[in-house]
Amino acid sequence: MPYTPPRSSQPPADFALNLSPPPGSPHNRTELTPVSFLTRAALIAPNKLAISHPERGYQFTYAQWAARVLSLTFAIQSVPGFKAGDRVAVICPNAPLIADAHFGILAAGGIITPVNVRNTPKEVEYVLQHSGSTIILVDHQLTHLVPSPPPSGVAVVVSNDSGGQDPNDPYEAFLDRGYQAWQAAEEVQRKRGLGLSRSGWRLITTPTSEELPCALCYTSGTTGRPKGVITTHRGSYLAAIAGAFEAQFAADTVYLWVLPMFHACGWTYPWGVTAAMATHVTIRKVDNDVIWDALLNHGVTHYTGAPTVQIGITNHPKARKLDRIVKVSVAASAPTAALLAKMESLNLHPVHVYGATETYGPFTRRYSEPHWVDLDVDERARLMARQGHSFLVADECRVVRPVDPSRPEHSELVDVAQDGKEAGEIVMRGNIAMKEYYKDPAATSKIVINGWLHLGDIAVRHPGGEIQIMDRGKDIIISGGENISSLAVEQELAAHPDILECCVVARPHEKWGERGQAYIVLNAEGAKKHGKAAPGTREHEALVADLKKHCKSRMSGFAVPEWFDIVDELPKTSTGKVQKNVLRAKFAAAAKL
Amino acid sequence: MPYTPPRSSQPPADFALNLSPPPGSPHNRTELTPVSFLTRAALIAPNKLAISHPERGYQFTYAQWAARVLSLTFAIQSVPGFKAGDRVAVICPNAPLIADAHFGILAAGGIITPVNVRNTPKEVEYVLQHSGSTIILVDHQLTHLVPSPPPSGVAVVVSNDSGGQDPNDPYEAFLDRGYQAWQAAEEVQRKRGLGLSRSGWRLITTPTSEELPCALCYTSGTTGRPKGVITTHRGSYLAAIAGAFEAQFAADTVYLWVLPMFHACGWTYPWGVTAAMATHVTIRKVDNDVIWDALLNHGVTHYTGAPTVQIGITNHPKARKLDRIVKVSVAASAPTAALLAKMESLNLHPVHVYGATETYGPFTRRYSEPHWVDLDVDERARLMARQGHSFLVADECRVVRPVDPSRPEHSELVDVAQDGKEAGEIVMRGNIAMKEYYKDPAATSKIVINGWLHLGDIAVRHPGGEIQIMDRGKDIIISGGENISSLAVEQELAAHPDILECCVVARPHEKWGERGQAYIVLNAEGAKKHGKAAPGTREHEALVADLKKHCKSRMSGFAVPEWFDIVDELPKTSTGKVQKNVLRAKFAAAAKL
Repeated sequence: MPYTPPRSSQPPADFALNLSPPPGSPHNRTELTPVSFLTRAALIAPNKLAISHPERGYQFTYAQWAARVLSLTFAIQSVPGFKAGDRVAVICPNAPLIADAHFGILAAGGIITPVNVRNTPKEVEYVLQHSGSTIILVDHQLTHLVPSPPPSGVAVVVSNDSGGQDPNDPYEAFLDRGYQAWQAAEEVQRKRGLGLSRSGWRLITTPTSEELPCALCYTSGTTGRPKGVITTHRGSYLAAIAGAFEAQFAADTVYLWVLPMFHACGWTYPWGVTAAMATHVTIRKVDNDVIWDALLNHGVTHYTGAPTVQIGITNHPKARKLDRIVKVSVAASAPTAALLAKMESLNLHPVHVYGATETYGPFTRRYSEPHWVDLDVDERARLMARQGHSFLVADECRVVRPVDPSRPEHSELVDVAQDGKEAGEIVMRGNIAMKEYYKDPAATSKIVINGWLHLGDIAVRHPGGEIQIMDRGKDIIISGGENISSLAVEQELAAHPDILECCVVARPHEKWGERGQAYIVLNAEGAKKHGKAAPGTREHEALVADLKKHCKSRMSGFAVPEWFDIVDELPKTSTGKVQKNVLRAKFAAAAKL
Repeated sequence: MPYTPPRSSQPPADFALNLSPPPGSPHNRTELTPVSFLTRAALIAPNKLAISHPERGYQFTYAQWAARVLSLTFAIQSVPGFKAGDRVAVICPNAPLIADAHFGILAAGGIITPVNVRNTPKEVEYVLQHSGSTIILVDHQLTHLVPSPPPSGVAVVVSNDSGGQDPNDPYEAFLDRGYQAWQAAEEVQRKRGLGLSRSGWRLITTPTSEELPCALCYTSGTTGRPKGVITTHRGSYLAAIAGAFEAQFAADTVYLWVLPMFHACGWTYPWGVTAAMATHVTIRKVDNDVIWDALLNHGVTHYTGAPTVQIGITNHPKARKLDRIVKVSVAASAPTAALLAKMESLNLHPVHVYGATETYGPFTRRYSEPHWVDLDVDERARLMARQGHSFLVADECRVVRPVDPSRPEHSELVDVAQDGKEAGEIVMRGNIAMKEYYKDPAATSKIVINGWLHLGDIAVRHPGGEIQIMDRGKDIIISGGENISSLAVEQELAAHPDILECCVVARPHEKWGERGQAYIVLNAEGAKKHGKAAPGTREHEALVADLKKHCKSRMSGFAVPEWFDIVDELPKTSTGKVQKNVLRAKFAAAAKL
């Protein structure tokens, strides 16, 4: 039986598809809001496939999706007690619900609060409590993350992710209530004789100010409590356009949702892909089998993921060279030479980007340079590892030191030399810098100093002006007075033919203060050669000698790691970042014994 | 001898390339200004060819251009008496001077006032006087347009368009004075120990508000005095990004400047092409020989021009099929089927856009639809003739009538049915609607009514929501109570195989009030068949009979023009629009006799 969307998701024949300006708005100003990307796409390309959800066998055109989101908007506004500025939490994998939420919550005047679904129930409870969310939209497989019973006054709506195919799906019933409220609102206007002019999306107004918050995203918080990053309609709109422009999203783009949408609002791509009137393909689980199915059969042109995700994808049995170039945004770290070569052999073309939840996702991009075509893959990987330059709409990303280091918060900032050597702190500002940490002025004042956002990363600037992160401030290894960039050591180490992934952290050393401790995951070939290479064995000794030799030929002696452990995998956050704090904690714990 | 730019156009080794925020700016807001596109391009792609001027044999990389524009910025600020908000007039063909001006004047805090170089000296005098321009930048071949002597207190700078190759070029001397002021400003900061942090472009701050005016463009004014359209930094920034996104400008784009930059600030493309870090190719004269040279040898990927310009290009002896697709934005009217076929045969792919100086250039675009590939060229031309939908960043373009036609200025607007039949007035609003007519509140209040911009065009809306202009309000032919769209008649008439161009205007008719009068320019084949077809001759009679028959098969009887004149050419404005007012004036003059 062909899929028929429920009535809440069926566009009326005359569907007004534009937000209304608030009464009295000047003719030459529209408050920027990413919601407008959806109404525009539905107006221009109503029959275009907007969102496809192959695991559950349903999909929506832009007109259908716009009707559905409008139903959601009215449903949220109809929740008793709901008012503008309220936080609405979403606990959902990459299913249409969380895509709906990126538009419907904002259109209703709420603030979307996406929850990291890999958090523990306790962590989720903290986020729900701290955000003061008054509505929770939750996927049926994640209801265990919602406190039971829910806090008083909080409405919980469960989605069975049926797209309306399941008559008992509570989310669909919620949408249907919204649909009825929408129809009732139209009826009032129809009686006034205004017809199309005050129907559909025209019943919704743009925010009274583009500077109003629209999202509250909690950082994964490698240390301490997660912090809530507040972003605005203006920033989200501009970041989305920049993302679409930089990735060259167009109407024929098919974006595969590998990156979790709960992570920094999916880098604003739920809005950016929509701005381009392109197609979203959602997958509930980052499953390499599902990903290859989409790459081979669904015409995917773009996706996003950390190198660790790429390793899984490129090593999957179904991997084969695609008949078109797929552009892959890679963040967290750059692809190693081996990974870069592997990806290119499959027609997956990585672009290295860098940013944070505090910068709406990517802030910089490593732009390729004309002479790269003449370089070998090793050299290209080395150049690509730099973080590069700011995105369109982003201000310049500076690397600075305070004029007076004794009073950094009162001191003017001086740029480091563009020599690839002098290290300083990365600072950013401008339209895609977050507004603040929610209800946490102390944390805000630690990161926002004198009009600049200080992410805490240590970097150099190259003669071409591109920045390169040496390390997160806390990841620097300080050995005999020398600063060692763990990232730089990893980059060189990863070029070894037997290594799949590696990580280097500081470990206390009697003589030098600190020295590098490397953790190595071998690739298939390496494993065949060296087996498990357990400590104390001959295999291990030979392997370590070989790795040290490899490092010595590529870095200063003091930077060569002192210790090497061969491990099966590295501990990672939900977004694929290696948890160096977990690895470092071992030594801290050992020191306490 | 290879070309060496003068010192004012040589970037320093450590070139700070970002505008400074005004002191005390919040960390999460940068006032939008299109100047930032240039500094960003120079930072990321310093050695990229930014602007090439083949007729005079010079060109600049982005780093050189950014140095040159910074010299211009300081030069303008150093003119005695110059202050923020002053208007700076530019009288220049498409040479680098006017491209420089689009950045340097804004960076200096001035308002660029581009002058239509096809205006008469008297018209230019009016624009200079009305704008109150305090500085005039003028190309050496256009000095006759500057009043002699110039008004007291007005500085006139002549450019020999030498790019510094002519030691006596006054513009270069002006830039050099700016360069010295820049160096002096840096010296002051160097003494404070701030080095790179307060050097180069960092000496310049973004505007204190993005809502400040940045351009004053005079409309060509088919009737009455030209009106000065004020646009803002915010609108220009957003329009430029939208233009770049819609045209898919990228780093490998080569934009050929066929469209005059003095026309609505070149549709904001001086900024949009730069935002994409693409290459500008400037040509002083719209010469089809020069254009074909650029198309065949300079790797041009994009250009812009009215159908009348396209006719000249496609019929040039050098025309041949290009080895790549060149995207051509076509405005003023849509290409006819014959022109569309001709263009496509040469790999020139037109995109039909619609807008006005009052909307920063294009506001809508005819997006192609998937089923067009199956249509013949006649049908595609007919569909392409619609004006389509709003650009990214533009609000929806509505077609409306007032609820109460007796009090239109106090009445709510009602949308017409989306049936392709009910006619109404086009209204727009939002971030790419002009701010106002300069010093003309009466004219402003005629076009800005109740928060909406009324351009005066009559349109219908099709079931897909796309708008189609029936006519400029004054071009409608009212015959026996029927409204005839002169544009629609022209569209059908132009499909006749003997016709190159045509135009239909209202002519008084005893019985019907008005009837259509057609003016026909024959193509080569038509001329061969029919000769001059002078009135009263047998050839004329036969041709008219044939044309009437052609029309009758394609439109209602009352719409078929009553009179047909064969002419050598149609009167046109400098931007290629047919001057229907000139043609209509004939009958008005005749009526007065």
